[in-house]
Amino acid sequence: MRGLLVVLTLGMLSSGVLAQPIAIVGGTIIDGNGGRPIENGVLLIEGKRIIAVGGRSMALPPQARKISAAGRYVMPGLMDANVHLVIDAFPFTLIRYEGRYQELAIEAAQIALKSGVTTVFDSWGPHDALMAARTAISEGRVVGSRIYLAGTIVGLGGPFSGDFAAAAKESLPEDFTQRINALWQQNVGPELMAMSPEQVRVEIRKYARSGIDFLKYAVNAHASPMIQFSPRVQQVIVEEAHRAGLTVQTHTMSGEGIELAVRAGVDLMQHCEITLEQSITAETIELIAQRQVPCALLPHTDAALAFYKERAPALPFLAHFALDDVNERALLRSRAVIVLSTDSGVWSVSTLNSAFWKQYDAPQSLLVLGEGHFNWFVAMEQKGMPAMDSLLAATRNIARAYKVDKDLGTLEKGKIADLLILDENPLASAANYRSISLVMKEGSIVDREVLPTQRLLTAQTAHP
Amino acid sequence: MRGLLVVLTLGMLSSGVLAQPIAIVGGTIIDGNGGRPIENGVLLIEGKRIIAVGGRSMALPPQARKISAAGRYVMPGLMDANVHLVIDAFPFTLIRYEGRYQELAIEAAQIALKSGVTTVFDSWGPHDALMAARTAISEGRVVGSRIYLAGTIVGLGGPFSGDFAAAAKESLPEDFTQRINALWQQNVGPELMAMSPEQVRVEIRKYARSGIDFLKYAVNAHASPMIQFSPRVQQVIVEEAHRAGLTVQTHTMSGEGIELAVRAGVDLMQHCEITLEQSITAETIELIAQRQVPCALLPHTDAALAFYKERAPALPFLAHFALDDVNERALLRSRAVIVLSTDSGVWSVSTLNSAFWKQYDAPQSLLVLGEGHFNWFVAMEQKGMPAMDSLLAATRNIARAYKVDKDLGTLEKGKIADLLILDENPLASAANYRSISLVMKEGSIVDREVLPTQRLLTAQTAHP
Amino acid sequence: MRGLLVVLTLGMLSSGVLAQPIAIVGGTIIDGNGGRPIENGVLLIEGKRIIAVGGRSMALPPQARKISAAGRYVMPGLMDANVHLVIDAFPFTLIRYEGRYQELAIEAAQIALKSGVTTVFDSWGPHDALMAARTAISEGRVVGSRIYLAGTIVGLGGPFSGDFAAAAKESLPEDFTQRINALWQQNVGPELMAMSPEQVRVEIRKYARSGIDFLKYAVNAHASPMIQFSPRVQQVIVEEAHRAGLTVQTHTMSGEGIELAVRAGVDLMQHCEITLEQSITAETIELIAQRQVPCALLPHTDAALAFYKERAPALPFLAHFALDDVNERALLRSRAVIVLSTDSGVWSVSTLNSAFWKQYDAPQSLLVLGEGHFNWFVAMEQKGMPAMDSLLAATRNIARAYKVDKDLGTLEKGKIADLLILDENPLASAANYRSISLVMKEGSIVDREVLPTQRLLTAQTAHP
Amino acid sequence: MRGLLVVLTLGMLSSGVLAQPIAIVGGTIIDGNGGRPIENGVLLIEGKRIIAVGGRSMALPPQARKISAAGRYVMPGLMDANVHLVIDAFPFTLIRYEGRYQELAIEAAQIALKSGVTTVFDSWGPHDALMAARTAISEGRVVGSRIYLAGTIVGLGGPFSGDFAAAAKESLPEDFTQRINALWQQNVGPELMAMSPEQVRVEIRKYARSGIDFLKYAVNAHASPMIQFSPRVQQVIVEEAHRAGLTVQTHTMSGEGIELAVRAGVDLMQHCEITLEQSITAETIELIAQRQVPCALLPHTDAALAFYKERAPALPFLAHFALDDVNERALLRSRAVIVLSTDSGVWSVSTLNSAFWKQYDAPQSLLVLGEGHFNWFVAMEQKGMPAMDSLLAATRNIARAYKVDKDLGTLEKGKIADLLILDENPLASAANYRSISLVMKEGSIVDREVLPTQRLLTAQTAHP
Repeated sequence: MRGLLVVLTLGMLSSGVLAQPIAIVGGTIIDGNGGRPIENGVLLIEGKRIIAVGGRSMALPPQARKISAAGRYVMPGLMDANVHLVIDAFPFTLIRYEGRYQELAIEAAQIALKSGVTTVFDSWGPHDALMAARTAISEGRVVGSRIYLAGTIVGLGGPFSGDFAAAAKESLPEDFTQRINALWQQNVGPELMAMSPEQVRVEIRKYARSGIDFLKYAVNAHASPMIQFSPRVQQVIVEEAHRAGLTVQTHTMSGEGIELAVRAGVDLMQHCEITLEQSITAETIELIAQRQVPCALLPHTDAALAFYKERAPALPFLAHFALDDVNERALLRSRAVIVLSTDSGVWSVSTLNSAFWKQYDAPQSLLVLGEGHFNWFVAMEQKGMPAMDSLLAATRNIARAYKVDKDLGTLEKGKIADLLILDENPLASAANYRSISLVMKEGSIVDREVLPTQRLLTAQTAHP
Repeated sequence: MRGLLVVLTLGMLSSGVLAQPIAIVGGTIIDGNGGRPIENGVLLIEGKRIIAVGGRSMALPPQARKISAAGRYVMPGLMDANVHLVIDAFPFTLIRYEGRYQELAIEAAQIALKSGVTTVFDSWGPHDALMAARTAISEGRVVGSRIYLAGTIVGLGGPFSGDFAAAAKESLPEDFTQRINALWQQNVGPELMAMSPEQVRVEIRKYARSGIDFLKYAVNAHASPMIQFSPRVQQVIVEEAHRAGLTVQTHTMSGEGIELAVRAGVDLMQHCEITLEQSITAETIELIAQRQVPCALLPHTDAALAFYKERAPALPFLAHFALDDVNERALLRSRAVIVLSTDSGVWSVSTLNSAFWKQYDAPQSLLVLGEGHFNWFVAMEQKGMPAMDSLLAATRNIARAYKVDKDLGTLEKGKIADLLILDENPLASAANYRSISLVMKEGSIVDREVLPTQRLLTAQTAHP
Repeated sequence: MRGLLVVLTLGMLSSGVLAQPIAIVGGTIIDGNGGRPIENGVLLIEGKRIIAVGGRSMALPPQARKISAAGRYVMPGLMDANVHLVIDAFPFTLIRYEGRYQELAIEAAQIALKSGVTTVFDSWGPHDALMAARTAISEGRVVGSRIYLAGTIVGLGGPFSGDFAAAAKESLPEDFTQRINALWQQNVGPELMAMSPEQVRVEIRKYARSGIDFLKYAVNAHASPMIQFSPRVQQVIVEEAHRAGLTVQTHTMSGEGIELAVRAGVDLMQHCEITLEQSITAETIELIAQRQVPCALLPHTDAALAFYKERAPALPFLAHFALDDVNERALLRSRAVIVLSTDSGVWSVSTLNSAFWKQYDAPQSLLVLGEGHFNWFVAMEQKGMPAMDSLLAATRNIARAYKVDKDLGTLEKGKIADLLILDENPLASAANYRSISLVMKEGSIVDREVLPTQRLLTAQTAHP
Repeated sequence: MRGLLVVLTLGMLSSGVLAQPIAIVGGTIIDGNGGRPIENGVLLIEGKRIIAVGGRSMALPPQARKISAAGRYVMPGLMDANVHLVIDAFPFTLIRYEGRYQELAIEAAQIALKSGVTTVFDSWGPHDALMAARTAISEGRVVGSRIYLAGTIVGLGGPFSGDFAAAAKESLPEDFTQRINALWQQNVGPELMAMSPEQVRVEIRKYARSGIDFLKYAVNAHASPMIQFSPRVQQVIVEEAHRAGLTVQTHTMSGEGIELAVRAGVDLMQHCEITLEQSITAETIELIAQRQVPCALLPHTDAALAFYKERAPALPFLAHFALDDVNERALLRSRAVIVLSTDSGVWSVSTLNSAFWKQYDAPQSLLVLGEGHFNWFVAMEQKGMPAMDSLLAATRNIARAYKVDKDLGTLEKGKIADLLILDENPLASAANYRSISLVMKEGSIVDREVLPTQRLLTAQTAHP
């Protein structure tokens, strides 16, 4: 634990603590509102917040520390609308790190931050461990991306349930698999499907107040178009989440699932381009666009699509990726609100070396946290998304979708000072997002060199 | 085929053909309307229909052939609201009899008739083969229970799909498993789940006109509370079936599934007591009762329940039977309309000898066609259903539920002459249904000795 | 059955029956003894046997029917030292044709004959069905390759045992799988491994007199280097087989297995180049060569090796084929006696269309009966075997190995008249074996057009 | 590690260190040579060794510390000829404790010592970890049973190989399963089966000098009568082990396997009563007896046999236990040398709670270290073994079989002072072995209360 306590100094050069104002001067400011960038702009930060944004003529407090961004680009910190900080939910990792999942989450949040993602939204993971990681970061005990979390996906089971890797449990002791499933499922697992609306209401009410930041529920099964909840039960879920002040989002796998989600009044839809067997109809696309329900997309680059296409004859479950592309292009042509997401996380060295992984290891894949979001921009550029739209999809749109735009998402007076300085112009080429020169979170400059501060799954040496 | 052509003379002593009226005299007539039985009654039949029902004083045509039922009980032929004439959909049987499934269906229909069931409603099976069997019987080429059929369950896959025995296909050639699945699925299999309502409409419209007698769709998955279709798609299914003049019924597995079914306006619900994990709420019970949607129950006798209870610790999927009992008793206490069903069929000698079967082989099980319906009466008697209600559940209620009560279900003037003569009073004890003395179908006395006229799955010797 | 009775006229133009002598004149005779071919030779046949072989000057009986082989090549009928006439021992075929396996064997024997193989040695199959096929052919009721058979491989189980496709039995009724396993295993299955030498002796003695033509036993397991029998038990097996006048052959999978086989005094070794993980040592190669125990090889052409090599990373069980090639070349360099074998049989259309088959479907594979032996010659030519040696490997060497060289294997006075006339010189190119112009078996010309006379597995249309 | 260093004081009341002689007086001494016990005997110990054994009249050094054994029984420390200190080789335990297996071995050795077993022979386990545990104990850094170890069973694979739980590896990363398998297999795993005798010799020579105390090889497969090595390879293995000064023992599963073992000249045979399907022939029993090759038996009590018999219909692999009993009784009737063994180890709480374990959890089972050896005596008593023979089987016979009888196995002058004081007479009833009053190892009294000094698998609370 001592290791964690020194992270503050290691991970952040804490300007914020001393409250010396910081002025970022000379760069092109892309403020995340979609307007024309401010050339030779000035951004003034005091403590955790931005106190002014303006042109070169803006007056600076004399004590301000100046950071030159001359020739560079200043933009809001990236956000990722869908990550899984504890994604390697395979037996080896879950056994090896039992009791330490919060450390895995912190490692992941640090990798995210290092790569410019200042806020992540974790939409499936072990509830308590994610809460612990969130708190450790928000209280400044460790540095890392700001975490918002959903805990489980309401209606789905844990890692060893039928929704995920049921076969794995055959060779594991029952007490362990039940214990782990419970860490995910809490009181809102698959048993909800057998309940009446009022029974579901009781459980959701409890779960919505368990410390989560937003609620995600399964409209469809994990990997099939089967529907998990009737509309009236979905309504109960949405109602209770909203009553607790939470935004609601969905896991869907079919066009009909999307219809149900939109009509249930959800605030965001994850991977709404995945419809497995049938592309989304024009009517449903229109509905999405008209209602302006944000869609968190998981687009594949041309290289990744080629990879999946080549392997699909032998591995038919890879076939849907081709359809995803069709849906993404249709959504792009509509006026749908699109937000960046990756479904990514940190995988252990063992997993990355495994035959399992090789099935998915497409070039420019989204799945690896710290890399995936860069590939997202490339993929969307290839599909024709305007550069500014992509940038908004990764900043302001997400903040709005999650109703945290009062504090996050743009470089405006009063907003929290999460920002990146890039060497190259992200509006010129999607590849330029990689040219990160500086990451600031809450007014503090991140020392990216030391991240992650403790290597567990990412340790360079193989396991002992 | 020659064997089939002689069946008429073998299987039925064809009074109807000669049009000599038949008078059944001296018995107690239980006409299937729920009123007081007519003692020493007379039933007059001409051709296929009943032309008069009355007391002993009724005048008889002089040429009438008299059949004495003195000391016996005359009642409508039994109906079974849920059978599967081709139920042994395991690789051994499906391979061995490929191309001959209609013969299996006929064998089953003959076993049903032999045991007093003059009409069966087949709610899942190979579409074309069942149609061929239905026609062979309705045209008098072979004797057997009158068949009404649904073909597949809309939304589910065939025998080798994920809904049934997917593992079996691993060791079978793909062309065979695809061919067989297609015999069941027709154009309305699991692919419908990925479709929009209008796409579904096109397929259902076609299927509803494919020769089926009624339509059954899956509200829930085969063995889980997952929902197959959104309410609006369900509405399309019901609409199109009704438009084609078909009744609609459901496969449900949860209380919420029942709610969806009732609200979709279906005409009958199969096994609505199976809700797997949660008993049906009082509200849903009340809804069923209030809307008077017939429930086809699959009740277990006390002996069967004891069998399942004992084995459930090792075979957890047997656990739901205890809950079924709870639901059945709740439905009985309500004013719900209950109809007899068995989910039964003919199993091959090999299957009956297999380890698989031993898991389900409860005493007094419903699953064996020709036996199951007798056990149904015993089970419902044990649960407290009044004797007359049970009798109506097996006759008039089914005829009404399937909208065939103009011709079937009671012993009334103008109805088709399907009837049984029992040695013992079925209203005195459920066990008395077994005391069949005579079976008449469409005015012809059935020669039960020769049934089934061709033994395939029921051959006494093991396979070669 | 009637279909089978007409086969004689259909399948053979029966010169032999009428006993008119036949003279094949003008061709180059390669008599199968390895000497210089006789150009413009004459071969005189009366009844089933050759009565003279000579040069053009040989006098012919006046009534002799002359067949011109001018510009062509006359050689002994081919023999295949290892086929499986009932090889498609998968559930679909075994269920579909239960009770008719002898018909499958006949179909296969006809395909073999059609492609120039006048004698086959079946080294694993259903004992009684193979005997029935052998008798039907030997008695002239149907035409087909001459069959010699071993029945099962002593020590191994039947098709649904752990030695073959144990998983398949999970979805099949136990009475069926046991019944089928018993057709193969007879009294000499895996249970022998647990017996003492004297117990084994009792069983082998019985089996050796059950009508088989030669005996094959497993030195190694079906697909691993594990050893099935101790040397003293192997000695018992060999002794009892020899005592019954049978040759003995082995199934081996390792160099040590070969050592055991040679030292046990066996008469032939099947696929002795398959040693899975380690190539055969020089000492063992030397032992084989020195003792002159015939090796029936299963060589792969360069094209096939390339196919296996490409797929081996994903399907590791394909890896051994590369080692097979190393061993084959080593055996070729030694003075080992090599005989042609293919391990081939007839596969159903369904199997040929299956994913299973695609794993093995190398170009120029040996596995398809009627094709495999042609590929054998090509493979051995590529490995550098002299053309005449290859020809002997497919004729005289096999006859000697099986101790049937009194009647078969060469074109010599007194031998049975099994022969081929080829358009092209087989000693010039291995590809020329395909240029079959005429097949004669036992002095009768085979009408290859009508073979097979009944198509079962080879029916062009898919199954119904 | 600090925890381990204090173990000496915790685990042993170290008389030996101070070299004050100890005199155990007044008890009945059963010296392990089979002769009449010495009543009111005196045993004098100095340092680690016994310096005198005699009657009450024996003179004692004045400074000797006297321990009264009046009314009690003094016997040699028990030995167990077959344990597995790291037996819970399931994924959960192997992942959780990767890198700490030596700690698991120490925990197990302490449980053994606590229950009176002063010496264990570990015949299958992770080579390096067992060596580390052996050294830690032999150097006095921790207290525990004296360990002799074989490492792997030559010819078998590691925990995730086909010989053990191959299916488990499906859900684990390949680098982990390979790494773990390698810990067991070293250079002498299944790959040896494909090697020639001289190749095997090279590997065995290396392995025999890797620090192991004795060598064990698989004559038969882990759970079938298949044979792993030809006689000449077995000879190589035995030769090389003997050349390195090691005794050799076997894993056999058939009568023929035993014959091979005896004739290969091995020094001990593990579980030679397990022959799976056929009882051992009289000839083989006679061979064992005549050659006096010690048999380490795994006998089941009547209660355990009843348990297995009841479950065998559902779990056929339990059937062999009935045959084991037959073989054990036959061996008892012969003059065979019998030694105690248990095949036991420490199982994790999770394993003990698992469905897997319930299959084997017979009453009075041998499988739990610390309990198994007590049940061994009960089982052999039930089978009619004379009490003194049982005692010798657990002491002197084992010391002789392993050729460590110069130091161990009896209470004689010059032997190492490993001994037990029992409250009840072990020769009166097998149950009395449980009445341990004092355990001495190497002249030091064991503080049994503190054992095991660190609880890992045996921690009372479930895993976190």
